[in-house]
Amino acid sequence: MNDSLPLRPSIRAMAGYVPGEQPQGGSWIKLNTNENPYPPSPRVFDAIRDALTGDRLRKYPDPVGTHFRQTAAKVLGIDPDSILIGNGSDDILTIVTRAFVPEGGLIASPTPGYLLYKTLAEIQGAEFRALPFGSDWQLPPAQGFRGANLTFLANPNSPSGTMVSGIALEQWIDEIDGPVILDEAYVDFADNNGLHLAQRPNVIVTRTMSKSYSLAGIRFGYGVARPEVIRELIKVKDSYNCDVLCLAAATAAIADQEYRLHVRAKILSTRARMAAELAKLGFDVTPSQANFLWCRRQDRPVQKIYEELKKRFILVRLMRYDGYGDGLRITVGTEAEIDRLLDELRKIV
Amino acid sequence: MNDSLPLRPSIRAMAGYVPGEQPQGGSWIKLNTNENPYPPSPRVFDAIRDALTGDRLRKYPDPVGTHFRQTAAKVLGIDPDSILIGNGSDDILTIVTRAFVPEGGLIASPTPGYLLYKTLAEIQGAEFRALPFGSDWQLPPAQGFRGANLTFLANPNSPSGTMVSGIALEQWIDEIDGPVILDEAYVDFADNNGLHLAQRPNVIVTRTMSKSYSLAGIRFGYGVARPEVIRELIKVKDSYNCDVLCLAAATAAIADQEYRLHVRAKILSTRARMAAELAKLGFDVTPSQANFLWCRRQDRPVQKIYEELKKRFILVRLMRYDGYGDGLRITVGTEAEIDRLLDELRKIV
Repeated sequence: MNDSLPLRPSIRAMAGYVPGEQPQGGSWIKLNTNENPYPPSPRVFDAIRDALTGDRLRKYPDPVGTHFRQTAAKVLGIDPDSILIGNGSDDILTIVTRAFVPEGGLIASPTPGYLLYKTLAEIQGAEFRALPFGSDWQLPPAQGFRGANLTFLANPNSPSGTMVSGIALEQWIDEIDGPVILDEAYVDFADNNGLHLAQRPNVIVTRTMSKSYSLAGIRFGYGVARPEVIRELIKVKDSYNCDVLCLAAATAAIADQEYRLHVRAKILSTRARMAAELAKLGFDVTPSQANFLWCRRQDRPVQKIYEELKKRFILVRLMRYDGYGDGLRITVGTEAEIDRLLDELRKIV
Repeated sequence: MNDSLPLRPSIRAMAGYVPGEQPQGGSWIKLNTNENPYPPSPRVFDAIRDALTGDRLRKYPDPVGTHFRQTAAKVLGIDPDSILIGNGSDDILTIVTRAFVPEGGLIASPTPGYLLYKTLAEIQGAEFRALPFGSDWQLPPAQGFRGANLTFLANPNSPSGTMVSGIALEQWIDEIDGPVILDEAYVDFADNNGLHLAQRPNVIVTRTMSKSYSLAGIRFGYGVARPEVIRELIKVKDSYNCDVLCLAAATAAIADQEYRLHVRAKILSTRARMAAELAKLGFDVTPSQANFLWCRRQDRPVQKIYEELKKRFILVRLMRYDGYGDGLRITVGTEAEIDRLLDELRKIV
């Protein structure tokens, strides 16, 4: 009877997105899912404790997250009505897919890129078109995206950590006729950002609190677009997609920009040292605008290195892309974690 | 340019689900969204405080919620692999819709029922077929559900609070050829439940922690079905759909059955008194298996009563169904809240 369970064929056929390994317990050095190695702002803990009342837990949350929207709008200098709250930025990516992409439609994205975009196409029963970046991570020509119901651009990109900005990005967006999702999950580690592009009628910028705000555990992200676009997207989200505790945490976190900048400075300093040392060990390290480094080797496949590190309780992300090859995506950890990583790598490579 | 933003036509055409009013602040008596008037188990607060560490917040949660699954499986006497975790049971309803219903497909459900099912059909670009309950809230004939990609049955039903069980329910499910979602959001207030039906290959039972566990604020629900069905549904959910704090809260809550039963007894006692008193005030009160009462009147439309109560800071839910009429769905509150409600109603009706 299972075989006859009338799942949509696209669901049965798909393999499912495989998130990075999340060992529950053991003393792993986790450099595989781009978590922030530092704890969130102390204000986050206070805000969660304040929200921890019987009345707050037993009642439904504010469906649109008014307090978060107002706070974030002030910090970002935008209209509160231009913000959509999400249960992680993955939730926002799901919402835009459902809003724009019909079954049998088309999602396009540069490759190598964030693997989830293809999964979202599969769930929606849409085609996925992967267009190769240029050799130096320039954007693929905009013509390739013609006819797409939705274009995803991770910027900074994963796994490369590279970023496209300025005129090159604006011209590319101008040439694309459909909606463009500018996925800025890692933008707080970059030199600039594309928030101003959310004023265009066909652009939605997405952000997450998982990386720069150290809140992967509480699941909160947001989208920014014109208010008339946000109003349509609100129809598609689950009514109460964000809970009271994560709303309290996210609001406190985004209000504490001093703390975010303090953590950012530490990560950028470690990133620079780590890139130099990995290069000395024979890795091709792509210059990064994110909190991770994309490390490839000319001399051999990297799978063995991944496995040797895992034996030593260090997790990095082994990634392979069709027609491109493999690499290790290594998160920027604490200074001590990176010292351990480098020590072990010196024994391995 | 907004007019040319290429949203799917079904999204642009839909009005969007309107959740019950959630006033943020003011001293309202909220009897409109079936929240539990009592706080959650004290163990929930302890569990959240224990999870409130920098490491837990900064790292991604367990994608499948292993600890919750194991705990719930023991309490419910089922296989942990038969449980799917959700960001509220609305998330589970969204997941099954995306898994089973193609664009242009068909969702069927008895009416008057939970209004969200129609919204889910609209988002998916599917047709919605509403089949009228019998005069005494018997199930509509199963033939009407032929060809549906998905059938939703809220059981107990909202707004009626009625429940179908035993042979009548099993025969109905046997006669329906497609997948059936047995939405048991309110089942903990009923005399029995249909969890055993989740062993059938075409049945998925959904539950929420929002009502009987007083956790509407933290967003947690789950689905129960055969493990081979759950494995497919996991492909459709967002990877990290439940955060560390709500997983901790839900696990603690379901482990404390003594507390749940204590709260349930109070609500059932208030429900009985409330039903009797409302009947004395001239309402047709449908016998309820849920934590709310469906109250109609022969003598007049109920909108005026809703408005008068709102002026007095008492919120109830005014509901209207095509071809059926209107009614007030009133949540069972504390004894004191219901005393206030009855006092005000005596002045109004």
